[in-house]
Amino acid sequence: MYGAGDVRIADVPDPAIHAPTDAIVRVVRAAICGSDLYPYRSMPATNQGRPMGHEFLGIIEDTGAEVTGLRRGDLVLSPFTYADNTCFWCRRGLQTSCPHGGRYGFDGVDGGQGEAVRVPQASGTLVKLPVAADSALLLSLMTLTDVFCTGHHAAVTAQVGPGVSVAVVGDGAVGLCAVLAAKRLGAGFGATDIVLASGDEGVEEVRKLTGGHGVDAVLECVGSMQTLSTSFGAVRDGGVVSRVGVPSYADGPIGMDMIMRNITLTGGVDPARHYIDGILPDVLEGRVEPGRVFDRTVGLDGVPDGYRAMAGRQSLKVLIAP
Amino acid sequence: MYGAGDVRIADVPDPAIHAPTDAIVRVVRAAICGSDLYPYRSMPATNQGRPMGHEFLGIIEDTGAEVTGLRRGDLVLSPFTYADNTCFWCRRGLQTSCPHGGRYGFDGVDGGQGEAVRVPQASGTLVKLPVAADSALLLSLMTLTDVFCTGHHAAVTAQVGPGVSVAVVGDGAVGLCAVLAAKRLGAGFGATDIVLASGDEGVEEVRKLTGGHGVDAVLECVGSMQTLSTSFGAVRDGGVVSRVGVPSYADGPIGMDMIMRNITLTGGVDPARHYIDGILPDVLEGRVEPGRVFDRTVGLDGVPDGYRAMAGRQSLKVLIAP
Repeated sequence: MYGAGDVRIADVPDPAIHAPTDAIVRVVRAAICGSDLYPYRSMPATNQGRPMGHEFLGIIEDTGAEVTGLRRGDLVLSPFTYADNTCFWCRRGLQTSCPHGGRYGFDGVDGGQGEAVRVPQASGTLVKLPVAADSALLLSLMTLTDVFCTGHHAAVTAQVGPGVSVAVVGDGAVGLCAVLAAKRLGAGFGATDIVLASGDEGVEEVRKLTGGHGVDAVLECVGSMQTLSTSFGAVRDGGVVSRVGVPSYADGPIGMDMIMRNITLTGGVDPARHYIDGILPDVLEGRVEPGRVFDRTVGLDGVPDGYRAMAGRQSLKVLIAP
Repeated sequence: MYGAGDVRIADVPDPAIHAPTDAIVRVVRAAICGSDLYPYRSMPATNQGRPMGHEFLGIIEDTGAEVTGLRRGDLVLSPFTYADNTCFWCRRGLQTSCPHGGRYGFDGVDGGQGEAVRVPQASGTLVKLPVAADSALLLSLMTLTDVFCTGHHAAVTAQVGPGVSVAVVGDGAVGLCAVLAAKRLGAGFGATDIVLASGDEGVEEVRKLTGGHGVDAVLECVGSMQTLSTSFGAVRDGGVVSRVGVPSYADGPIGMDMIMRNITLTGGVDPARHYIDGILPDVLEGRVEPGRVFDRTVGLDGVPDGYRAMAGRQSLKVLIAP
């Protein structure tokens, strides 16, 4: 990406092993993330460009000397951040705080929207997939790199479980995944009702659906001040608002009202690596099909069109098959 | 209270039963709460005055026709808000959200800093005490009306338990009670270390005490923006900040940093009634002695001096023995 609205396909040198903990992955499937739309809308123009993409799965081509448990030919998926998976933070399931971790597309690490990626901390990061590279499950497996795990993180941090009423704010791919995740965790409300209204009207409808009380948990999957305020309006006293959208604000309303109503604000960036092993069996056995969020597939050449389609809301989520 | 700094002792008519769910309680002990200092510092002058006090225990003098489980002569304590203890909210342990509940000193209900109080929703509100009115335990029992339960609420909502490292921000009566409460719940850190520094320096000391990581839980018992920011600085990624102080701010920093670090913000006004039954045995058997937070006792005539002493930090917490 060379600036807002400016996505180009460029020829770059093939990635190579830099550190003994690296692996090279040939990309089989990648995707455009809702969060990729932030730079697509706001990035200042540069000459250098920034490698894009943090959702991908592919086949291992090469491994550094210290990589264990993975070898050439393995089909693997990567969570959207890399991490060593052994440190203080990773052991606590917070791979997004790993001091040896980082983000794809930064610090000399490739983006996933391309032909191949150098993956740092490969042993800690990559998850081996027990399917073939042409499996029909690739679509749903792709969502474990980010979007489904992110919806799941919202549901987990909001303590969704059997009998818990849940409202999901946001009808993007993360929101839809949050609905599936909440249902999978046994939520009582899940996708039983759809409220099209937003703002005060939306809050009123949610309250009407819950006997006036509001829901136990709101999964805020957008990140705007309006959706945060809708979330506070829809949650019951003593309930939880969990945020997984990138916030477009720095400060928010956490004064007397939140205190008097005993509302908890939780969530954050999803440590996907922590969740993948637990969700994988349900995807492999078809009990959850988050791959349905993809509504368009493009080749590498189609990536700029894919951004346009998602930014223009002609597409919910774009799959890339290089 | 007739305005900031203006507390007077006034003769008012004896309270009487208004509703069949009322009880009249003759006050045996009352207290001045840190939150009473807010109006003491900022209340606009009025001719009418406002009855003060929401922490008291006493002896039942009269009960309305629908009051059950309580009778004349019973020694009872009241949580700092009244509630029916049967509604949707009360059944969920959120008596502070009870639609039939309210605050002492408002809406024609007496304050506890006086000789007698009309207690609405008496059956749901009052807790019978199995001790005599001259018991040495009254001091610690008094803290169950508010201050100890408030510290406990901070610890509970922050999920304090065995092995959890806890920092308590604030050295007032609530902060000290939060230390006792966290210890009682098995916290690993509790009152093992005291950090006198505040702000960045305090944060640094807490981080040094926790291997650089920060604590699992911060109990924020003050309510200022500075203490909130100290709390965010002291908590580890993925940790919990629980607030029980009255916030002196309307907006706070809940943007990218909180999201990237997966910090949970919880707490709120303490539903003391929900906790009293569970804590009572430990107080009665002396396993926890929160009454130690009282460092001054006054009669009714001494209440204005009590406010002055607490506002001037000559006293931590003032007990009133009318």
